[in-house]
Amino acid sequence: MKSSDAPTMKDVAREAGVSLGTVSKVINDIPVGEQYRRRVDAAIKKLGYQVNNYARGLKTNKTYCVALVMPSLHHPFFAVLVNELSKCLMEEGYRSLLMITSYDSQVEEKCFLLARQNKIDGIIALTYSPDLEVDESISVVTIDRHLSNHPCVSSDNYHGGELAAEKLIALGCKKLLFLQIGNVIVGEAEKRGPGFENACHRNGMTCHSIVLTDDETEAPFYQFLEEHIHNGKLDFDGIFCNSDGLGVRVCEFLRERNVRIPEDVQLIGYDGIVDYATGRYSCSTIVQPIAEMAQAAVHLLLHQQGDLMPRNISLAVHFAPGGTTRE
Amino acid sequence: MKSSDAPTMKDVAREAGVSLGTVSKVINDIPVGEQYRRRVDAAIKKLGYQVNNYARGLKTNKTYCVALVMPSLHHPFFAVLVNELSKCLMEEGYRSLLMITSYDSQVEEKCFLLARQNKIDGIIALTYSPDLEVDESISVVTIDRHLSNHPCVSSDNYHGGELAAEKLIALGCKKLLFLQIGNVIVGEAEKRGPGFENACHRNGMTCHSIVLTDDETEAPFYQFLEEHIHNGKLDFDGIFCNSDGLGVRVCEFLRERNVRIPEDVQLIGYDGIVDYATGRYSCSTIVQPIAEMAQAAVHLLLHQQGDLMPRNISLAVHFAPGGTTRE
Repeated sequence: MKSSDAPTMKDVAREAGVSLGTVSKVINDIPVGEQYRRRVDAAIKKLGYQVNNYARGLKTNKTYCVALVMPSLHHPFFAVLVNELSKCLMEEGYRSLLMITSYDSQVEEKCFLLARQNKIDGIIALTYSPDLEVDESISVVTIDRHLSNHPCVSSDNYHGGELAAEKLIALGCKKLLFLQIGNVIVGEAEKRGPGFENACHRNGMTCHSIVLTDDETEAPFYQFLEEHIHNGKLDFDGIFCNSDGLGVRVCEFLRERNVRIPEDVQLIGYDGIVDYATGRYSCSTIVQPIAEMAQAAVHLLLHQQGDLMPRNISLAVHFAPGGTTRE
Repeated sequence: MKSSDAPTMKDVAREAGVSLGTVSKVINDIPVGEQYRRRVDAAIKKLGYQVNNYARGLKTNKTYCVALVMPSLHHPFFAVLVNELSKCLMEEGYRSLLMITSYDSQVEEKCFLLARQNKIDGIIALTYSPDLEVDESISVVTIDRHLSNHPCVSSDNYHGGELAAEKLIALGCKKLLFLQIGNVIVGEAEKRGPGFENACHRNGMTCHSIVLTDDETEAPFYQFLEEHIHNGKLDFDGIFCNSDGLGVRVCEFLRERNVRIPEDVQLIGYDGIVDYATGRYSCSTIVQPIAEMAQAAVHLLLHQQGDLMPRNISLAVHFAPGGTTRE
């Protein structure tokens, strides 16, 4: 009954014209020359050879799978971040397990349970639970937020704030306003405000700041702005918002009240969100280097260990004009 | 040396105060009462019990993992689709393996190889390779495109085209234009044009159509429009674009040439893309029911088999005003 047997690794090696060792390497994701990999893949496909992945897992005790824990893909920042993380992991021979938490801490807990159960090799997470704790035995890299002692990758938020202030001042602004709405969790993104305020002070400027948290609405911003508009003139001429989304909404509010942007008021957001239809920034912005952040997170997770593991990695940002500043 | 041994399933059962069978069910993703699942999960966490997932896989021969094959998450349609697919799969106790192909057919091939190697239970794919072939032994559901004989889930593209025509005609348009740019692969989205044209003819209207493929640029559209503008008046008063992205760009082009939208020209796109900052549609549009498409795809993949498997499932669309029509 030999002819009806399932094909073996030996059959694959014969078909591909390579050694058994080469077939084994391809199956176990160990680097081999690209032409060998292709020949083995083609032979596997032709013969219908089926790797017993579980038996392989028992041997190597690795899943070659990393979980990406994200709140949602409705926001373009998260969507592009997941896109880049997934591409980087694929280049390293790893697969991406996508876990959308919808801001639900129970789902976040569940993801970490998977890791404890050896179902994944590590986690790259952007979490929203304030009191999530993750044992150090699990490999975790976070984006923007701190989670126990695991390393955190972010853009250089503090310098991004400084850059926004310096840009507005260089463009002639004299009365500066900072608006922030966001998560109550302590995270790297919080440094945007202090960076902005510090650069204002360093340049001899005062800065008015309004900081709201997620459980509030943006209404206090608009009430404040309304009270500070007199005959189409706002009492401030430079605004820094802690996200492009907020920046777009503030611009719209002001323009509806005949405040001219960028002629009378200039505004800078944060993130560098690009419109899907036009490819343009939605407002002048501090651009987060999303592809580089993804690369750094994957590199940290897969290649750094122990004492060499940094606590924070923050990557360079830059200013990009998007129509809400004079340049 | 008993005390230093790793905890067993028995230890978990004792800690949780449940039977060994209940622990086994929880570990093997077999439904049990939510309170039992929580107690077992808590006990697993407390004791640091590690499931040997590979040994489990050898027994059940299922991975409880589905691959999502997508070209990119830079476009909001793909990002929201993946978001919804991932949520549906999680509700069914399945995990999502995200595979970003970046429109590269080699990556698509690789994804299907994974399935052949038993590393996943099935695939939900939006592919871009024209001659990809996938054996029927693999469980695959596609979105928008046909792949061998696997079932395809889409919005009701043909009726979406009809709806756009009927809406423009009801809003008083007399001279209709259809613009399409897109993939060369035969797929469901192609039916938007025929649906639009047929509804025009049914209503005694002619319709001018320009259809371009992905390997061309949109320049011929703008050249055509330019030639048909005389003193700020376009020769057409109703335009249907096969995507919101194209719709936004066409509106921008016309407005820059002082053509008034929606006063003189009304335009409808397709997709129902919502702006991340304002929550508004980017133009008047035929809305694809993304959440329902995700549910249908997951249901087909996990619960339908054999002769009952439909070839196509197309789901109801609706019109939503977005500022580029008079209503």
